[in-house]
Amino acid sequence: MTATRQLPHPARDEIRIEAVLQALADPVRLQLVRELDRIGVGVACGSIALPVGKSTRTHHMRILREAGVTRVEPHGTARITTLRREDLDALYPGMLDGILAAKR
Amino acid sequence: MTATRQLPHPARDEIRIEAVLQALADPVRLQLVRELDRIGVGVACGSIALPVGKSTRTHHMRILREAGVTRVEPHGTARITTLRREDLDALYPGMLDGILAAKR
Repeated sequence: MTATRQLPHPARDEIRIEAVLQALADPVRLQLVRELDRIGVGVACGSIALPVGKSTRTHHMRILREAGVTRVEPHGTARITTLRREDLDALYPGMLDGILAAKR
Repeated sequence: MTATRQLPHPARDEIRIEAVLQALADPVRLQLVRELDRIGVGVACGSIALPVGKSTRTHHMRILREAGVTRVEPHGTARITTLRREDLDALYPGMLDGILAAKR
């Protein structure tokens, strides 16, 4: 069993508001973030039901990770995704709650 | 003197979070919103200094208006732009303050 490799993430002070907003501006990515927030713990990204195929899902997960919205950590051969709520709340207090208050 | 025509705006309940985030995800538009928030009253859009030409400015103003972020009202032959803070704060409490807390 080969361990899954580490993926790059921006440090908290490298996170840019434009990239975060761009990442959250897509309905599928916003749905992913809602689910991660609702679940509250790390999940295997494939466990969240989405109306898209695997490669599109992978694309969206990458956008969220690279923007600093999510953290994706290897766990054996799986990858566990968590919402970087602590970082986002520290950088942009109230933003995420405000966005998640939006009616669907 | 011909009065400038009314421009279309989404009503509060027509504003979509994805469009708002997309509108705010651009550095020039975010700068415009920062300035509108700082000034706090309606301004002629041309009075805000931006590092772009007139047609690009017009494009950015349109994106913000159509997303529901700003209101643009004719005032004689001029157009006065205001931030729709009351609508945004009601729909997404804390979002705008969180975004504007971002370091530049």
